Amino acid sequence: MPSAIDFYFDFSSPYGYLASTRIEAIAAKHGRTVSWHPVLLGAVFKLTGGVPLATIPLKGEYSARDMARCARLLGVAFKLPSKFPIPTQAAARLTVWARQSDAGKAKELAAALYHAYFAEDCDISNPDVCADVSAVCGYDRAAALAGLNDQGVKDLLRKEMEEAIERKVFGSPYFIVDGEPFWGADRLDHVERWLATGGW
Amino acid sequence: MPSAIDFYFDFSSPYGYLASTRIEAIAAKHGRTVSWHPVLLGAVFKLTGGVPLATIPLKGEYSARDMARCARLLGVAFKLPSKFPIPTQAAARLTVWARQSDAGKAKELAAALYHAYFAEDCDISNPDVCADVSAVCGYDRAAALAGLNDQGVKDLLRKEMEEAIERKVFGSPYFIVDGEPFWGADRLDHVERWLATGGW
Repeated sequence: MPSAIDFYFDFSSPYGYLASTRIEAIAAKHGRTVSWHPVLLGAVFKLTGGVPLATIPLKGEYSARDMARCARLLGVAFKLPSKFPIPTQAAARLTVWARQSDAGKAKELAAALYHAYFAEDCDISNPDVCADVSAVCGYDRAAALAGLNDQGVKDLLRKEMEEAIERKVFGSPYFIVDGEPFWGADRLDHVERWLATGGW
Repeated sequence: MPSAIDFYFDFSSPYGYLASTRIEAIAAKHGRTVSWHPVLLGAVFKLTGGVPLATIPLKGEYSARDMARCARLLGVAFKLPSKFPIPTQAAARLTVWARQSDAGKAKELAAALYHAYFAEDCDISNPDVCADVSAVCGYDRAAALAGLNDQGVKDLLRKEMEEAIERKVFGSPYFIVDGEPFWGADRLDHVERWLATGGW
């Protein structure tokens, strides 16, 4: 059985959101599955000296325009959130918690969290807002809230972050296909071609 | 007559090199011309806090792999130069000098300079090497060397850099199509679609 595509993303990453709307269909077309890995880019940026796009002169302004333009091209609802970027521990922990019982349903939750933030301007840095989203997805709200505060879940996310950094994940979205890394929503065409051809 | 596409590039930018091999064909397909503008990203990075890709942990290593992979996909000769990145004043000034007499021939010179650096590992930060490349392109070597050292040419490049920064050019390659900015070789597909559709 071919290995899963690893999809790393930060919930505060607009390009991660855009990619999240496309990766499952691309993988399915080539008989692959996708493992979704929420990461906290803040921890990675401490290593790489990276800074949030929005804070960079000229580049931040351009990027806001580019994000919206990419979203329109893909037909994906997008509005730069009024609070951006945000800490994404709550959303990442909730996703890790949800994955423990059902990975497929956890992807739906992650997609819903992304949509809440980038299409509906809900502040998913707030655990209560995350719990609200989980309730809409059919989770028990109180259980979700307890889950994202669970020490075991926090430890698991920390461990996964360490693994991601070992695998040299430095941005969002980041894909690993059969050992080959791809960074950026604009590399999804390369991901697809790699899946179709086995590489070049 | 439709306006020209503005193409901004730094001679030390691998993605600028890749884009330079594609932009003329894309423009021609849509009845457009291209104005080539060499820029010095070092000056821009002072404003934006940008740093050369190669110096960024993890991202630099990934980028080297991505550049080579993109080049193979495009069928473009590419080898990361042994000296990278480099100051590009000499190549930029030579191009600005050449443009004064013949803009079309200056593009061929710019393409040859890019090829010398990224396919043949010639150190085009060296004015003598730039002059050698110009001689292969049919320029008088001594005139080219004098041209790239000319104060008027230096002033003209400085003025054009100021204009580029006013137009918010922060990276390479950077395109402006009918007022719409596009950054990155990976936005050439968007450039092409913009030309075909007038925007979205």
